[in-house]
Amino acid sequence: MHLELHRKQFPALANKAYFNFGGQGPLPQASLEAMQKAYEYIQLYGPFSSSVNVWLRSQLHQTRVAIASELGASVETITLTENVTVGCNIALWGIDWQAGDRILLSDCEHPGVIAAVEEIARRFKVEVDSCPIMATLNQGDPTAVIAQHLQPRTRLVVLSHLLWNTGQVLPLKEIVEVCHNYTASTQPVRVLVDAAQSVGSLPLNLTELGVDFYAFTGHKWWCGAAGLGGLYVRAEVLESTQPTFVGWRGILIEETGKPIGWKPDGRRFEVATSAYPLGIALRSAIAIHQQWGTSQVRYEQICQLSEYLWQRLSQLDLVRCLATSPPKAGLVSFVLTNGQSHEELVRSLEKQGFLLRTLHKPDCIRACVHYFTTPSEIDQLIEAISDSWETLKS
Amino acid sequence: MHLELHRKQFPALANKAYFNFGGQGPLPQASLEAMQKAYEYIQLYGPFSSSVNVWLRSQLHQTRVAIASELGASVETITLTENVTVGCNIALWGIDWQAGDRILLSDCEHPGVIAAVEEIARRFKVEVDSCPIMATLNQGDPTAVIAQHLQPRTRLVVLSHLLWNTGQVLPLKEIVEVCHNYTASTQPVRVLVDAAQSVGSLPLNLTELGVDFYAFTGHKWWCGAAGLGGLYVRAEVLESTQPTFVGWRGILIEETGKPIGWKPDGRRFEVATSAYPLGIALRSAIAIHQQWGTSQVRYEQICQLSEYLWQRLSQLDLVRCLATSPPKAGLVSFVLTNGQSHEELVRSLEKQGFLLRTLHKPDCIRACVHYFTTPSEIDQLIEAISDSWETLKS
Repeated sequence: MHLELHRKQFPALANKAYFNFGGQGPLPQASLEAMQKAYEYIQLYGPFSSSVNVWLRSQLHQTRVAIASELGASVETITLTENVTVGCNIALWGIDWQAGDRILLSDCEHPGVIAAVEEIARRFKVEVDSCPIMATLNQGDPTAVIAQHLQPRTRLVVLSHLLWNTGQVLPLKEIVEVCHNYTASTQPVRVLVDAAQSVGSLPLNLTELGVDFYAFTGHKWWCGAAGLGGLYVRAEVLESTQPTFVGWRGILIEETGKPIGWKPDGRRFEVATSAYPLGIALRSAIAIHQQWGTSQVRYEQICQLSEYLWQRLSQLDLVRCLATSPPKAGLVSFVLTNGQSHEELVRSLEKQGFLLRTLHKPDCIRACVHYFTTPSEIDQLIEAISDSWETLKS
Repeated sequence: MHLELHRKQFPALANKAYFNFGGQGPLPQASLEAMQKAYEYIQLYGPFSSSVNVWLRSQLHQTRVAIASELGASVETITLTENVTVGCNIALWGIDWQAGDRILLSDCEHPGVIAAVEEIARRFKVEVDSCPIMATLNQGDPTAVIAQHLQPRTRLVVLSHLLWNTGQVLPLKEIVEVCHNYTASTQPVRVLVDAAQSVGSLPLNLTELGVDFYAFTGHKWWCGAAGLGGLYVRAEVLESTQPTFVGWRGILIEETGKPIGWKPDGRRFEVATSAYPLGIALRSAIAIHQQWGTSQVRYEQICQLSEYLWQRLSQLDLVRCLATSPPKAGLVSFVLTNGQSHEELVRSLEKQGFLLRTLHKPDCIRACVHYFTTPSEIDQLIEAISDSWETLKS
């Protein structure tokens, strides 16, 4: 009953069974209203009055504080960005690449990140190595795979903490240790993480993880509004990371307006005017999750639900889950073993109010559960998938 | 009376006399409501359903179409960005700089753009030249100044169409011709325009102007929501402009998800997830302006009102307008000749409900009028400025 009340805060959950948290989270009504109120506040006391400008700066700061607190990081390490991809680009373009340097990329990364890495390679004559992480879903050791693929000129390893396609959680702390302890390189090996799936779903302490760059978004597992994400940059690598896209939000100016340096913290990578009310929506969404439970409690609930979904899917004759053991997060990917088109099933499910998605690599269907998913939604999904075959047969 | 009704569409105008359009425009109530409805629509039919994703792509397209139409450009030349500064950065980072190349920068540019140019200079060993455009406000020929400062290695000229500090409109078509016809260079001389002040206030035909890059924002003179701007890239320079920050929105992918190239048009410079409802707010705001009159009609009204403001300010004993003839756009900058602090006057005016701003270079106060500013607001402002001296004396 408590859960039902909690779910009522998310209008999107009212009329459908939602399994696309890895694509986008449902926005709480309170977040939308807080955003609306912020727009009204700006018009009432401004826009562009000194009082509104002071208020907006304070809102930005509070948003960085809320994010930092959830990530186990200090506020100085947080940059606000438009999305996770911009965060990845800031890290990628911030390194003083030399021709012949190498980037090690996992084989499970998002096409947008792959394309960004390829453009870096082209511009700076950097080599890109790929390593077979996908194959470690059910056996093998991803840390060993990374270790085997480091080379003396490797300067950056790019991977996801929680793989968007297979749902595997990588042992990030071990991987970071292997990279930072790699002695065959004359330069430090940095680790850039695409955290699109891990932020808001895994309990995190970035300070302990030791990761160098951790790029994330507010609009997936945190259920904030689309258009606001961020980047964590480890304090020790801040100074050696060069700002690329530059604007008034990142710089210090002297009295005559002349730029004289970067802001001392993660704000140096921020550029210019943004949709500031998005930060208010995100804070409101994070507060709603915190009212339910700590990130550890929410994570355990996600794991229980994804195990249930994984079990029920595994019991279906015509389904094979990619993972042979229960997932350690909210993404459950599976294939149809009867040759039926994944696209077709997902389209048919969407018509019935079940939102899932297909993926290309590997060719599969992905269903996500959040801490507030209900077992009954999962049961209905299983039934709808079974029914689709009945329909096909008839 | 018609004007009074028109003004009622902008809640921010109800409780103050607004003269900060160069900082941010007042958001129409209809735009805010359209944005709110878009958020509700996304939650109802999605988020992240195939139907919502199709709808969002169509919304983005319609936003590019509306922008292109107002700019006298084809939709293929338009990139949506978070703000004007990102647009400038896309152009700056898109050129294949060689050590020794030169950028010519006007001396009236925004600190954020100056800092971006300086970072390009540092990264690529490019030289930056500055030219004295500010001094041409009342005499001299800005085109001649540009022409005199071109050098054989100059590859880019960076300037504003409408100067944010002095309010001068530069003869952009002539300047572009001079740059494009400069024969002492082995490489073409491109022109990048910071159009923060010109878009939404000047009638524009970018195709005729011939400019290469024109970066703008929706939240100033167009009165859209903050966080959405754009970049025009002339069709002929699209292919030679390299995308820098790269993500899924800019790339083509093959069936397996592998990136295989750029989108064929301005979308190639777009990165990833944005606050899509902002585009709906912007279109709604543009439609409201169009209901009032064409961009030519609106511009003429702006000029009439700024001439009136300029005249009334010029009649004040203790005020000197920077321009010695009526401004050709909506920005009127002035100084106090009694040594009174500009900051202090602006603060005092804000308390009385008059929103203006100070600038550092030159040290002045800026008052902006839009087509819907009323002569009575101007009269009240003049009275408030006069009264401030009475208060000081007493």
